[in-house]
Amino acid sequence: MSPADKPVRVGMLGCGVVGSQVARLLLEDTAELSTRAGVKIELTRIAVRSIKDYPGLDPALFTTDPFSIVNDPEIDLIVEVMGGIEPARELAMTAINNRKSIVTANKALLASHGADLFTAAYAKGEDIYYEASVAGAIPIIRPLRDSLAGDFVTRLMGIVNGTTNYILTKMHEDNREFADVLKEAQALGYAEADPTADIEGFDAAAKAAILSGLAFHTRVTVDDVYREGISKITLEDVAIAKSMDHVIKLLAIAELTPADEISVRVHPVMIDKSHPLASVRDAFNAVFIEAESAGPLMFYGRGAGGQPTASAILGDIVAVSRHIALNSIGQRETDYADRDIAPIETTKTKFLIRLEVEDKSGVLAAIAKVFADQGVSIQTVDQNGRNDDAELIIVTHRATEGELKATVEALKKMSMVTKISSVIRVEGAIS
Amino acid sequence: MSPADKPVRVGMLGCGVVGSQVARLLLEDTAELSTRAGVKIELTRIAVRSIKDYPGLDPALFTTDPFSIVNDPEIDLIVEVMGGIEPARELAMTAINNRKSIVTANKALLASHGADLFTAAYAKGEDIYYEASVAGAIPIIRPLRDSLAGDFVTRLMGIVNGTTNYILTKMHEDNREFADVLKEAQALGYAEADPTADIEGFDAAAKAAILSGLAFHTRVTVDDVYREGISKITLEDVAIAKSMDHVIKLLAIAELTPADEISVRVHPVMIDKSHPLASVRDAFNAVFIEAESAGPLMFYGRGAGGQPTASAILGDIVAVSRHIALNSIGQRETDYADRDIAPIETTKTKFLIRLEVEDKSGVLAAIAKVFADQGVSIQTVDQNGRNDDAELIIVTHRATEGELKATVEALKKMSMVTKISSVIRVEGAIS
Repeated sequence: MSPADKPVRVGMLGCGVVGSQVARLLLEDTAELSTRAGVKIELTRIAVRSIKDYPGLDPALFTTDPFSIVNDPEIDLIVEVMGGIEPARELAMTAINNRKSIVTANKALLASHGADLFTAAYAKGEDIYYEASVAGAIPIIRPLRDSLAGDFVTRLMGIVNGTTNYILTKMHEDNREFADVLKEAQALGYAEADPTADIEGFDAAAKAAILSGLAFHTRVTVDDVYREGISKITLEDVAIAKSMDHVIKLLAIAELTPADEISVRVHPVMIDKSHPLASVRDAFNAVFIEAESAGPLMFYGRGAGGQPTASAILGDIVAVSRHIALNSIGQRETDYADRDIAPIETTKTKFLIRLEVEDKSGVLAAIAKVFADQGVSIQTVDQNGRNDDAELIIVTHRATEGELKATVEALKKMSMVTKISSVIRVEGAIS
Repeated sequence: MSPADKPVRVGMLGCGVVGSQVARLLLEDTAELSTRAGVKIELTRIAVRSIKDYPGLDPALFTTDPFSIVNDPEIDLIVEVMGGIEPARELAMTAINNRKSIVTANKALLASHGADLFTAAYAKGEDIYYEASVAGAIPIIRPLRDSLAGDFVTRLMGIVNGTTNYILTKMHEDNREFADVLKEAQALGYAEADPTADIEGFDAAAKAAILSGLAFHTRVTVDDVYREGISKITLEDVAIAKSMDHVIKLLAIAELTPADEISVRVHPVMIDKSHPLASVRDAFNAVFIEAESAGPLMFYGRGAGGQPTASAILGDIVAVSRHIALNSIGQRETDYADRDIAPIETTKTKFLIRLEVEDKSGVLAAIAKVFADQGVSIQTVDQNGRNDDAELIIVTHRATEGELKATVEALKKMSMVTKISSVIRVEGAIS
């Protein structure tokens, strides 16, 4: 039962912002990390696209041939930090087939090909650990997979994209337009030159797939996730949220439906200020979980960056090294529940609809009838006069996305409706 | 590598609020929990002080002889939820010597005799899992021990006692006196008839010992923890905190000192409203951690109650059952760092001192000199006239507890000082 004397040999694929940090810390802290793992951990090889000077890293560690690492019989553990789907997928599969365990930060890979990789790793008795793939430094994979293994998650809501949370925070706190803050975020390096993956919610959707799969013991891929980004959010939306003591956040939401399906989606949400997620500012991430016995839980921290991501990867390296030394494997995500994904049309939520209407008598009655005809119950109506038009702000009770969509279509056809300015989903305080 | 066909047989010690919940859920959810563990989990025996009717639990499960369980060669895993130190310690030791793994919620036992139990379990190759011992349902042991195994914690601050947080929340939000809210909490069952363990910080101190030992890879016992409770906190203190945009919380704090020692303490703190811990209300718990690579992290949820505690215990049962089936063991706390505990006198923090002084000229100069003589630098002074006396509210820069204590002693000797009303430590926003 005591760890073997043979060291665990680590090969790394990629050496960018995250990888170079992992390599540096792994070499610097070898003694402590090895003591914690109960076995000596040795970084032996790093594959990069082109070899350059990495301060503090021995040039002899590097190769441009990643397959030489995943095929090296002396290497026990592959740390994949190259990102992207190919060749990462092929390399990981080859490594598993060669009986190597994997530590990866690659959300895109897992959200698309997780099932294949897990199945292959199961068959070979190898670990795939991926704490860094969601919410950077925040321990969220282990809490979901291990700590909550004795509980039943009913709902999960996360701020899992730092770039969009930074933009929304600046819009709320400094009253600045989306485009303006985005430009600043790009200049600061918080947003990519092509910001689509962040602002249109693709990054969050991959993370939603990974978290919901774990939480509900079902395989979920990024294609199962309904997705809307934040590019349409205006300062007017923000002002209305503020006036109602709410803030707008881009949330990844996964929940069990009454039909025992999983609803998984990423979209902007107006959330009550008293909810713990509402006070998560700037580029911080947080995941809020409700479980049957545990009740509400929240996990908060830095969701990105070289150092925070390296922290998560190094924790995984210690755990997997220990398993290798003990000839064991860690707790596994399971897919026994095999639930269906709920069509977005059946998902129930509250909505805020902001629309411009002609300012004449009978308009409110006519509009209220449209809502009623679609089965959507109105909770509050707020009416502001503006020139010849009036602005109506309508908050509904919980309705399905399908009912709401039909309502909006019907509203668009009314001659007295000048413009549907926005439709935003609404979440309350902790229930 | 695939789990054995032999089921894992669980014996339970105790069947109170938490234990009965664990037993009920373990029987109700056997299929799911066994699938997640990869091995069938069977609850076979429960020891209680006196046998009574437990709804939903087969009377044949019960015995009044706990030693018959820890000595039963058919039982693999002991769930200790009886609490207290003896006979829990002797039973756990006997179980370990009989090669059984332990899942426990017993903070008092671990904070006093953890080192002995861990050493014995190491020697026998058994697990001791104890997620439920600190902060109820909140995953905090696993994140510290496993997720942060690749990182270095520098500081940890926790709201780990729900009763005191409930009382302080009511004092802040409803402007009610300590004694009044305590009485209500007792009536509601949130506080014990003898509330000393909660309000004087003994419960929090046990949790501080467990968390700081894990975080700093050192054995820490409850006797190492400096402790002050909340019974001296007045509505005047609360009002001053509010006026400075702070709230008063009972915090467990553990940090590395510049001398590479650990400072571990439990006491009331005025904390800046913008700090994530400041918005943790009512009986909720939260632990805030700063680590070198990860940066700031926070874990939030229900810290007590039958169901939340059962959630943590069941997660541990699944994990340990899996290890038993795989003939493996989980990640272990280590004590290799073996750091000294810093004497409280050397601990540095900011202080607020509220004192009544004669309202005449030269008083402030004389008092400022006392601070300067002890090496304590003043950050702000606020002076309120009240009848013949004046009230001074002084906030210091960071000073040692020893320097502050000497300052207070010197102030007490001054004839112009009528009363030292309170001394409260102050924490800022996230640095």
